[in-house]
Amino acid sequence: MNPKQPNRRKFLKNTAALAGLAVGASASAGPLAAAPAPERIDDLHKYGERSRFVTSQRDGCLCNPERRLENEPRAFGMKTPLQDSVGMITPASLHFIVARGYEPPDIDPQEHRLLIHGMVDRPLIFTLGELKRLPSVSRFHFIECHGNSDPAGAGGPSRLAPNATAQDTHGFTSCSQWTGVPLSLLLKEAGVQKGATWILAEGSDAPKHSKSIPLSKALDDALVAYGQNGEPVRPQQGFPLRLVVPGWQGINNVKFLSRIELVDEPYLSMSESTKYPTLKLDGKSRWFELQLGPKSVITRPSGGQHLPVTGFYEITGLAWSGGGAVREVEVSTDGGRTWKDAQLHGPIARKAHTRFSIPWNWNGEEAVIQSRCTDDEGVVQPSFAEVVKFRGQDLDFFRTATANLGDFNAIQPWKVNRDGSVQNALV
Amino acid sequence: MNPKQPNRRKFLKNTAALAGLAVGASASAGPLAAAPAPERIDDLHKYGERSRFVTSQRDGCLCNPERRLENEPRAFGMKTPLQDSVGMITPASLHFIVARGYEPPDIDPQEHRLLIHGMVDRPLIFTLGELKRLPSVSRFHFIECHGNSDPAGAGGPSRLAPNATAQDTHGFTSCSQWTGVPLSLLLKEAGVQKGATWILAEGSDAPKHSKSIPLSKALDDALVAYGQNGEPVRPQQGFPLRLVVPGWQGINNVKFLSRIELVDEPYLSMSESTKYPTLKLDGKSRWFELQLGPKSVITRPSGGQHLPVTGFYEITGLAWSGGGAVREVEVSTDGGRTWKDAQLHGPIARKAHTRFSIPWNWNGEEAVIQSRCTDDEGVVQPSFAEVVKFRGQDLDFFRTATANLGDFNAIQPWKVNRDGSVQNALV
Repeated sequence: MNPKQPNRRKFLKNTAALAGLAVGASASAGPLAAAPAPERIDDLHKYGERSRFVTSQRDGCLCNPERRLENEPRAFGMKTPLQDSVGMITPASLHFIVARGYEPPDIDPQEHRLLIHGMVDRPLIFTLGELKRLPSVSRFHFIECHGNSDPAGAGGPSRLAPNATAQDTHGFTSCSQWTGVPLSLLLKEAGVQKGATWILAEGSDAPKHSKSIPLSKALDDALVAYGQNGEPVRPQQGFPLRLVVPGWQGINNVKFLSRIELVDEPYLSMSESTKYPTLKLDGKSRWFELQLGPKSVITRPSGGQHLPVTGFYEITGLAWSGGGAVREVEVSTDGGRTWKDAQLHGPIARKAHTRFSIPWNWNGEEAVIQSRCTDDEGVVQPSFAEVVKFRGQDLDFFRTATANLGDFNAIQPWKVNRDGSVQNALV
Repeated sequence: MNPKQPNRRKFLKNTAALAGLAVGASASAGPLAAAPAPERIDDLHKYGERSRFVTSQRDGCLCNPERRLENEPRAFGMKTPLQDSVGMITPASLHFIVARGYEPPDIDPQEHRLLIHGMVDRPLIFTLGELKRLPSVSRFHFIECHGNSDPAGAGGPSRLAPNATAQDTHGFTSCSQWTGVPLSLLLKEAGVQKGATWILAEGSDAPKHSKSIPLSKALDDALVAYGQNGEPVRPQQGFPLRLVVPGWQGINNVKFLSRIELVDEPYLSMSESTKYPTLKLDGKSRWFELQLGPKSVITRPSGGQHLPVTGFYEITGLAWSGGGAVREVEVSTDGGRTWKDAQLHGPIARKAHTRFSIPWNWNGEEAVIQSRCTDDEGVVQPSFAEVVKFRGQDLDFFRTATANLGDFNAIQPWKVNRDGSVQNALV
């Protein structure tokens, strides 16, 4: 037995005596005691805003209306404007959204609870304040929705449309520094019983989204997150608690997390049985696709942008992989004939966006630029032709598909035209 | 000569042909082409907000009114609520502000220019679009205002007040991932002339804040930043361009950067001659204090917070140093008698906030908790008593001081009382 176990048990018994008294959230600074000659202090100064000249925004619409069930809350997706991104962090205000039900639930964090039960020795209930007293970690991770794989684009131009932007093609991925408690710590405290092999994670939104996740992943690197980029998780990302399941399809990252049940089989909840399985060539469904990537996309120059003159440009973009850290990104500016190593900008974190860049001198001729990611498992991002061949599909099948075809991580080419315009060149 | 130099010159000649056509900012996604059945999409979904239950905010007031010159724009400071922080990133909306003039200037980035002139071979003017075409870097750096050293607290409770919070004592430091162009690249392109030893950096705000900075620092790690935490620098942090001078007093990080002049001596601008020099014991001023730290502060539990029950708590806080990376943070929970190594949470970046934590079991007795930072130059954060002794000051002098006394990086103790309340225990 772990010699530290008794102490852990003790503190958790102590936390059980709490009655909703959050330690962190309730402890914001009181009014200043000796403020001389107070000035007018408006909201802009208490909590700032961006310049009115900065208009970058999420964009999107209704997802796959034809697959909507009767009385099902309306699903929608809003994509991150990756073409405007710098560095590795997605501002929380621009983190992509995929949701069923238009407004996020308006949860009072003092009232919120996380229940851990099922095949455990000691069912546990945590308040936010109790979770914040536990050992925390802060880690950079991307979350990517499977919608990035949808050839129809999940709203907006299709992945094949010449006018598709990086937001259209890849905007369902975002990266944050997530802060919270390792799920493994909570599960050890609850005492997972022999025979338990899966968890069912459930949110407290209206549709009670739930997802089955293998116990091995839950014990590996899953995180019960209360913090995002230095402040509480945003409502549209699951306030006050989100389960972060690094590198796996976004659907696993259950928002508004309120319940984790230890079980001995996947539960085939609505999302995993009717929504997210992808289509195989034989017409049957592929269930429980989980790990994403490796992927990359050049964000500048990218579709919809414009090069005003010839000469020097930095080509820059983002790479990521569910398989771990990004090991290498290569960039081609001649339609894939030759490739050069791009510079990776640190910190290079596991299962996180990694910024890459490479210098380029545009001579004014038509050029196709693209990037290729290799992760630290050695997996290399394939070309579109390789994906199509591997799957035994043809291009028309892909072009007319109305269903997800599985994780689609093909290299994204952009064509720079002689007039400086940039367009999607996937086909 | 650097063989790459000709290419650099060439691209900068090309950029000189640009006429304000920004590459990045103007290139946000156009309207979606094939959006089916558009839903109502409101601002919350285009650019998200935090939960109404999250009320953490900057706080502050007028700075040192007694030192204000006639007709000088009114200075004010707003501090970051460090006690609510998680991870290493300060949300841009909560980044501290020190400003002369209440409203930040409303700058149209298309109209903004950066001029580099003085003792250079080739004076240069850059648009934002041109800067964004150049090789970029993204780095985590703290910016800290010298106001954190003010014993009077620069508004709000004094550093010695029992009711001071971490926001009151240390809220003039914040940490962002800054993205921009190394100043060294721009200076090399302009061709620094022999004899130039300083730069004068000037902003385009109403008071035209300017600051002299040694050329050696400008060539070392200074950054002309257009990005902050993944989006454009915020107006209150200098939109559209801020000079980031890592590890040096905040005043060097010139906001609204519009001019860099190469000169052969410091210019003794208003801020550096009448405002920021600090008082020596002989009544004379100490000019050009530059490098900050090492410092640290426990953010949870900290002044004004409350421990609801005995038992386990994670003690966590932030450490930083102008001397480089944080090498070690020790924590004492017994008033400084014994110290234990805290865990440092990566990424540990140079001249950036580093999150630390250590487990603690509170037995319900009075306890004084404090942290001590050692940076990778081996410099150790001193106790308050050591600072006072080193300076030849006495406590009363410190207590009654109305002027800055120089970089004050003493260890910050918090006292946990038997009723669970936490208070400032600096003296």
